[in-house]
Amino acid sequence: MNQIESLDRLINYFSNLPGVGAKTAQRYAYFILNQNKEYVKDFANALIDANTNIKYCKVCGNFTDKEVCDICTKRDNKIICVVKEPKDVLAIEKVKEFKGQYHVLHGTLSPLDNRGPDDIRIKELLQRVQAGGVEEVIMATNPDVEGEATAMYISKLLKPFGIKITRLSQGVSMGSDIEYADEVTLSRAIEDRKEI
Amino acid sequence: MNQIESLDRLINYFSNLPGVGAKTAQRYAYFILNQNKEYVKDFANALIDANTNIKYCKVCGNFTDKEVCDICTKRDNKIICVVKEPKDVLAIEKVKEFKGQYHVLHGTLSPLDNRGPDDIRIKELLQRVQAGGVEEVIMATNPDVEGEATAMYISKLLKPFGIKITRLSQGVSMGSDIEYADEVTLSRAIEDRKEI
Repeated sequence: MNQIESLDRLINYFSNLPGVGAKTAQRYAYFILNQNKEYVKDFANALIDANTNIKYCKVCGNFTDKEVCDICTKRDNKIICVVKEPKDVLAIEKVKEFKGQYHVLHGTLSPLDNRGPDDIRIKELLQRVQAGGVEEVIMATNPDVEGEATAMYISKLLKPFGIKITRLSQGVSMGSDIEYADEVTLSRAIEDRKEI
Repeated sequence: MNQIESLDRLINYFSNLPGVGAKTAQRYAYFILNQNKEYVKDFANALIDANTNIKYCKVCGNFTDKEVCDICTKRDNKIICVVKEPKDVLAIEKVKEFKGQYHVLHGTLSPLDNRGPDDIRIKELLQRVQAGGVEEVIMATNPDVEGEATAMYISKLLKPFGIKITRLSQGVSMGSDIEYADEVTLSRAIEDRKEI
C-alpha cells in the first residue's frame, strides 16, 4: 500500500490485532516510526517476553509467569470460582471482594462449534475438587446460553462430591433503567427478589 | 494490574499507541499471548525493522526506506503537491489522479504551539523550486485555519519564482447533504461554482 515493504509488513501485523482495521493499523505504524530506537526495541522485547514467559498456571489455568500462579499459591482453596477466560479473573479481582481461588475453563461448551466437555478444562476442575478441601464452587460463566449450559453441565458433575455449588446472582444492572432491562433479566430479578 | 510483570509491561506499551485505552491494550496483549512464538518474533522484528529502515526522503520528506523515495526518483517534478503529513500523501496516492511529486511539511504554522516557518519544511520546498523545473505547486494542506494560513504564507514566498500556485478546490463533499453543509463550505461552494 505504501510500497515500502517494512512499513506494509508492520501495518499488516497491527491489523491482525483484534478489532483493528487498515486505518488504525496505519496510525499505530506511523506512531512507531516516530518513536526512538530504544523505545521500539523495548516494545519488541516486551512482545517476545510476554509471549515466552507467560504460560497457563498448572492448577487454575490462568496466565502466569510461574509454574503455579500467585493466587493458587497464596489463597486457600475452600472456594473456587469457575470462569470462562483469564480476563474474567481480572474483572472479578478488580472488585476485591472474592478471596478464593479460580478455575479458568478456556471456553464454554458449544455443540455448534464442536466444543465438548473434553475441549475445556472440566477434567482439571474435577481433579481439584477430588483432591479435597473445596467447600464451594461458584459458577461464574457468562449469563448467556453457552455459559448457562456449561454451568449446568459442570454442576451436575460436581453434585456427587456433596459440596456447595453456587451461581452469580442475576438481575438488573446497577445504574441501569428498569424500563430498558430485557424481559429475561427482569423476570429473573423479580423471581430472585430479596427482602430489604 | 495482573501482577505479572511481563504482561503488565506489554499492556503498558500497547496502551501508549494512539487512541488505545486500558481495556483495548489488554485485549491486544491477550491476543499476543495466544499466538505462537514464531509469529510474535516476526511481529517484534517488523517493529524494529520499520523503525530502523524507514526514514524521511531527502527530497520530499515522506517516509521511505531509501535515500530518495520512489516517487521522487520516478516522477517528474513539474508539479509538486505540498501536504502536511505523510498520511496525506497516502490519501492522494489512493485516488491515482496525481502524477507529480510531493513535499511533506511535517506540520503547519501554528503560533499558539510556537511552530514557526523554521519548524516545518518550508526552506526545503523553496530550494526545490529554486533548483528549477517546477511549473506548479499545489497547496494541499488541510482546509482549516492553520492549513489555510500555511498555504497563504508559502504561496507568498513562492510568488517571486513566477510559477503557478494552486489550492485544492473547496466545496460540498460528494454524497453529502447540502442541508447539513456548514456555512463557510457552502459559501465557498457558491463562490467557486462551475458552469455545467
